[in-house]
Amino acid sequence: MKAVVHVMLKPGVLDPQGEAVRHALGALGFGGVEGVRQGKVIELDLADGDTAEAEAQVRRMCEKLLANTVIESYRIEIA
Amino acid sequence: MKAVVHVMLKPGVLDPQGEAVRHALGALGFGGVEGVRQGKVIELDLADGDTAEAEAQVRRMCEKLLANTVIESYRIEIA
Repeated sequence: MKAVVHVMLKPGVLDPQGEAVRHALGALGFGGVEGVRQGKVIELDLADGDTAEAEAQVRRMCEKLLANTVIESYRIEIA
Repeated sequence: MKAVVHVMLKPGVLDPQGEAVRHALGALGFGGVEGVRQGKVIELDLADGDTAEAEAQVRRMCEKLLANTVIESYRIEIA
């Protein structure tokens, strides 16, 4: 079973990495880029089992390790 | 218009960040994690316009800046 976790900085949290990308795109001549936010995507290969249980386990992984829930939000997809 | 770019290391390319996450999950007692790959997600706010043109522009951004196409693959979603 595969789980995909998207971790993004919460709205309002300064994103210097995204800002750097925005500046670099401007410097390369790409116009019309009004904002850039950069986050992480983590793909997990899990042992096969119950989908709901897997999602609960991945949620615990996010709370404990994968996301800093003070400044980051996360979204889980089970495939 | 919003574009989301997923950048992942190509299969076979060593992913030390993903390996570190896998080890850490094991150390925290999460079993059944067979593999972890970590990538980037980049959200772009683009000026409104033609969707096909926006996708072509984002593809050029990926080729030039956002992805290292030697070792990384990317996927574009326009929303």
